Amino acid sequence: MSKKDQKAQRHGTRRPKKPFKSEPGTSRSSGAKPRHRSGQNTEAKPIEKGGGLWLFGKHPVLAALRNPKRPIKRLLVTKKSADHYLADFTDINQNNRDLTPEITSADVIESLLPEDCIHQGIALLTAPLPAIDLEDCCTIEGDDSHLILILDQITDPHNVGAIIRSAAAFGARAIISPDRHSPPESGTLAKSASGTLEVVPWVRVTNLSRALDQLAELGYWRLGMDGQAGLSIKQADFGKNIALIMGAEGRGLRKGTQDHCDALIKLPIQRTVESLNVSNAAAIALYEFSAV
Amino acid sequence: MSKKDQKAQRHGTRRPKKPFKSEPGTSRSSGAKPRHRSGQNTEAKPIEKGGGLWLFGKHPVLAALRNPKRPIKRLLVTKKSADHYLADFTDINQNNRDLTPEITSADVIESLLPEDCIHQGIALLTAPLPAIDLEDCCTIEGDDSHLILILDQITDPHNVGAIIRSAAAFGARAIISPDRHSPPESGTLAKSASGTLEVVPWVRVTNLSRALDQLAELGYWRLGMDGQAGLSIKQADFGKNIALIMGAEGRGLRKGTQDHCDALIKLPIQRTVESLNVSNAAAIALYEFSAV
Repeated sequence: MSKKDQKAQRHGTRRPKKPFKSEPGTSRSSGAKPRHRSGQNTEAKPIEKGGGLWLFGKHPVLAALRNPKRPIKRLLVTKKSADHYLADFTDINQNNRDLTPEITSADVIESLLPEDCIHQGIALLTAPLPAIDLEDCCTIEGDDSHLILILDQITDPHNVGAIIRSAAAFGARAIISPDRHSPPESGTLAKSASGTLEVVPWVRVTNLSRALDQLAELGYWRLGMDGQAGLSIKQADFGKNIALIMGAEGRGLRKGTQDHCDALIKLPIQRTVESLNVSNAAAIALYEFSAV
Repeated sequence: MSKKDQKAQRHGTRRPKKPFKSEPGTSRSSGAKPRHRSGQNTEAKPIEKGGGLWLFGKHPVLAALRNPKRPIKRLLVTKKSADHYLADFTDINQNNRDLTPEITSADVIESLLPEDCIHQGIALLTAPLPAIDLEDCCTIEGDDSHLILILDQITDPHNVGAIIRSAAAFGARAIISPDRHSPPESGTLAKSASGTLEVVPWVRVTNLSRALDQLAELGYWRLGMDGQAGLSIKQADFGKNIALIMGAEGRGLRKGTQDHCDALIKLPIQRTVESLNVSNAAAIALYEFSAV
């Protein structure tokens, strides 16, 4: 039995639904008829820029639609994109999510998003994912080495998004960041994460030092990345279960965070270059400690 | 003799200049008087947005001013930044560059730059660096392993800038990209490169395949990064002198480029994640093959 079939069985067998009502005899290339919500012209709806969490672009939106924990409030697509994503929508519908895409113009989608977004004709109004506890995703189970990434006040959503993407790629179990001085979930962040915001659990904590204590109790080595450290990452050998801690560019790790690390390590870079972009530094560290 | 003294001697001994005319008794904190170009109010000058190459932000502009190959057409600073950068300007003046900063408002600087730039009160009107030949910076000399990075149609200036920064950090001798489908030097790219655009020679070639042939003749192993490759970068062992080739996200390396590689290698990432951000992938590959 395929994974999809198993999933269908878990949810009870049901007749696969099509995402759009289509007339008999119409094919994908001839343009399936979309079901407009309430049959209204969506362009006439009042739209408030920045109201709610809008995700946009192919990877972030399709990944969000496939994530059962991600609410679907409105799904907007252009006519052209509706055709393009028909197979994806049908597949998602078959997995127990009721999609009701609103077909609209690119102009309407653009009016809802920050300027110069590459939306690829698709946008989703949703809400942040439910909060998650550190112990729920960081407890060490089995023999595999576990990798956790902690972001200490990294604020740029492009960087945080790219970091989440690398964390997913290298099998990190979770991202942890303090509640304050961390970017919220946003369309820009999700676009940089390229769908992986739905994949890696992101724990927000009120007290980062306490979280680092918890990680030590759970059995992690807490390694802080610091350009001034004496130990190079190439010499670092801490065995299994690593919690990597990255600070913001320029400011680096806060003193209180450093005090809760078991060791500080640095990347071996030329002395003439001050630092790397933080997402690049995180990618290298994740690669180095990944068990993938 | 210090390096600075040696340099001063090479250029002929001269009396160190101050970047601004200052009144006797004025101190940095009390605000040195700037020398306005022609004594004119710079705000009244006609300003054409996007005219010429404007660099902005602390690291890119200070690095450009320290690069003798970088022309200085206009240097704009806010009053507050003029005080902040006084020591840098004085140091640069002592090394034989005549700086004539124009003191102006943040509004004027913003009017010259793309929206939402973080200019840190400093902007430089300049011109692209002189063209450079592949053989001038890629010829293998001495016993040290040489590392070259080739960008095959990577167009995003943020990514290219971050890649140049990593290339500088990991001691790459040069960046090579095709003339077409590569971003020009720009303020945004230079900001992402954080000053390293002045450091790493960037060779633009009309024919990338021919450049790859040249690199083979010079003695490089040409390794193409490709998500579909059979060989993991962790197993790749090619010895010294590596030319790494990165393709654009999504499209990857072009067929013609692949045909000019000695091997294709991939990063070991989770199957569920399609790819990394290209600058993150480049950072990891540079780290892996760096001799730093």
